[in-house]
Amino acid sequence: MDQIELFFAGTGGSVPTPRRGLPATLARLDGDRLLFDCGEGTQRQLIRSIGLADLDAIFLTHLHADHWLGIPGLVRTLELRGREKALDIYGPSGTAKQLAAVGIATGKTDYELHISELEAGDAIEFDGYEVEAFNVRHRGTALGYTLVEKGRPGRFDPERAAELGITDGKEIAALVAGDNVREVEPAEVIGEPRPGRKIVISGDTAPCETVEVAASGADLLIHEATFADEDDERAAETMHSTARGAAQVAAGANVAMLALTHISARYPVRKIIEEAEAVFPASVVPRDFDAIKIPFAEKGEPVLLRPDDVKVEQVGAPQFAEAAEEGSAKSEN
Amino acid sequence: MDQIELFFAGTGGSVPTPRRGLPATLARLDGDRLLFDCGEGTQRQLIRSIGLADLDAIFLTHLHADHWLGIPGLVRTLELRGREKALDIYGPSGTAKQLAAVGIATGKTDYELHISELEAGDAIEFDGYEVEAFNVRHRGTALGYTLVEKGRPGRFDPERAAELGITDGKEIAALVAGDNVREVEPAEVIGEPRPGRKIVISGDTAPCETVEVAASGADLLIHEATFADEDDERAAETMHSTARGAAQVAAGANVAMLALTHISARYPVRKIIEEAEAVFPASVVPRDFDAIKIPFAEKGEPVLLRPDDVKVEQVGAPQFAEAAEEGSAKSEN
Repeated sequence: MDQIELFFAGTGGSVPTPRRGLPATLARLDGDRLLFDCGEGTQRQLIRSIGLADLDAIFLTHLHADHWLGIPGLVRTLELRGREKALDIYGPSGTAKQLAAVGIATGKTDYELHISELEAGDAIEFDGYEVEAFNVRHRGTALGYTLVEKGRPGRFDPERAAELGITDGKEIAALVAGDNVREVEPAEVIGEPRPGRKIVISGDTAPCETVEVAASGADLLIHEATFADEDDERAAETMHSTARGAAQVAAGANVAMLALTHISARYPVRKIIEEAEAVFPASVVPRDFDAIKIPFAEKGEPVLLRPDDVKVEQVGAPQFAEAAEEGSAKSEN
Repeated sequence: MDQIELFFAGTGGSVPTPRRGLPATLARLDGDRLLFDCGEGTQRQLIRSIGLADLDAIFLTHLHADHWLGIPGLVRTLELRGREKALDIYGPSGTAKQLAAVGIATGKTDYELHISELEAGDAIEFDGYEVEAFNVRHRGTALGYTLVEKGRPGRFDPERAAELGITDGKEIAALVAGDNVREVEPAEVIGEPRPGRKIVISGDTAPCETVEVAASGADLLIHEATFADEDDERAAETMHSTARGAAQVAAGANVAMLALTHISARYPVRKIIEEAEAVFPASVVPRDFDAIKIPFAEKGEPVLLRPDDVKVEQVGAPQFAEAAEEGSAKSEN
């Protein structure tokens, strides 16, 4: 797998703001598209930015309205567009019942729809990576998700091999396959296995150990930060996190980058960033339509991309030209 | 009542587009705020434009997902904002059950919420106007709404009265109250009663007589126009209207202005306008965040207002500065 990129389709929390839609984060992994949470308005956020991606699966962290109410409209729109590919929806216990209440159920769409409920420890296998659910601490059942790429074998070192007299292609192939060649063992010419990239998505949660454990050594932790320090009691009461609390989890897990989401209009964003950075300097607060690209570990750190640098999925998508678009909407259309 | 203004919070149909949100039209009548339909994303459309108005009532035309899915989020957001005033939700048969399925029901909010199901002929009285439901022709039960202002008495003509020897205030008051004064009858000095302003909202419907009857002589008919002529068969199959079909209804009802909504991204808007204007010249296709102001009949025709001329409801609302807003969102926030 080459590309791993997280696109922030909605970075607000609870209530949308002029700038921030309700929670939705799209993972792009080569050709695969996974959506994590789908708040009200997510289909339009995608239509306004990269285009309505050809989703493979939707993972819900929990069933509070701001995290799932975008599903019925999205599922219906995909149908109107003539989708043929199956769509998988995963969520915590209760997901099937909640979606059925709004008419979304297996057998009720023109394309195949599968709704599966997950528990902590359940892992969904994809080609080259998996998504595993873990419990977080929020009101009611709530999950976080670990997206982890399969590890790659260690690199073959041709110089060291030549020193040991290994230059023949067949012999190299044998070593790479794990066999000894004469007295040379694979470990002498092949480096340590390279772990896959790892992204952890907290969903809504108070700071908790399960997130810290899941995120240990992750390339990217996407963690909610609903409150600033001044409201830490309210954060505790509602089982949300402050920016500082999220940063402490990121520091404990030693992640490469912390991206804060579920941002309230209550505070200047600067305050959220500063309170996080004081604890964990590699903190960012993506805006809607930003993305974070995760390169292979040996190629550097995760990078926050602005809309101009994010690839549009679909011909006819507005290429993020929000300003231009809205400007032109004021002339005759 | 002085102000009657219709604000177009969402003019798209079925599927949102970059420029058009899902159906929602806000009527502003002096201090009253009535929302007609509430598609997914309506709360954010309001937050992005005039601010989240202090709604008095929501009227649903029918229960297709694109017309009501914005309610749960909106109801929840009003609660988070500490609303105390009661909110009335009206809709066709099935509304209470559908909303209960997403947790919206009387007694489930911190403020009073009333959900009432209407049938054709049911009228809700407000101070100075009423809203009456009528049946339209769409798949399943679907209503249109007539918003009609109470009539005003005729104007007193002081010159004619003086000619008849009536100049005394008490005598004038008696005539205005309907009593004869000497041989002078009220009708000799008081003009015809002036009918109230009338706005009709079709909801989703094939062109139909009930709309034409309801809209007879209306100041404004807001009618769906999901299809262009080239797709008239599809319009008939899905029980929607073409722009031409809507214009024929407007012409038959002799309305002052026709505003087309439920606009598809399938066609250039110019085509929709042209097909309507060919039949009914006083046709407009409002864009999201446009409004139509309905003056008293003696003060002229309805006027289409662009966002710069629409009053923002609420301090802190972004004043429609969509372009500026999205532009600044690209710098640090």
